[in-house]
Amino acid sequence: MSADQHDAQLAAYRSSIDNIDAALVHLLAERFKITKAVGRYKKDAALAPADPGREALQLARLRALAEESGLDPAFTEKFLKFVVAEVINHHQRIAEGEQL
Amino acid sequence: MSADQHDAQLAAYRSSIDNIDAALVHLLAERFKITKAVGRYKKDAALAPADPGREALQLARLRALAEESGLDPAFTEKFLKFVVAEVINHHQRIAEGEQL
Repeated sequence: MSADQHDAQLAAYRSSIDNIDAALVHLLAERFKITKAVGRYKKDAALAPADPGREALQLARLRALAEESGLDPAFTEKFLKFVVAEVINHHQRIAEGEQL
Repeated sequence: MSADQHDAQLAAYRSSIDNIDAALVHLLAERFKITKAVGRYKKDAALAPADPGREALQLARLRALAEESGLDPAFTEKFLKFVVAEVINHHQRIAEGEQL
């Protein structure tokens, strides 16, 4: 395969990656909108920002979905922890009275 | 608001979060399918697993998309780095001859 064909193929792959990334950003934006609403609810109800029982259920479910879809379950676990750490940070800031 | 109403509201939020997470897992699975194909291309073309120029362009674009959609641009940068670290790990393993 020539260098030009490689460039065209690489550009096609990258165009698909860019489309998926745009979708991921918008889904994450929507997810944090909901978790911020959860943070405000938890503040009103004096609930703790983190919920280990809920996180264990989410993790088991996402690992199963990952296996079905061909995503590495270990990566999925790291991903969920990465997102939940941000959520807990938001919930703590909301609990302290910050407007998020 | 009563505890039961809180529980119903929290359950509704969590149902939406679970739906979004299923979509995120499937999009990430698709993204890694493409980046693994990129890894095989890079191996064939003897290209480096990482491409800092490409990553800088992705970052600028995703930060702009994040601002439009209300996602924290700093989180978006951490997210992209988190995903790209996994991609580079895959590319290195592919370059070493592993079947991914």
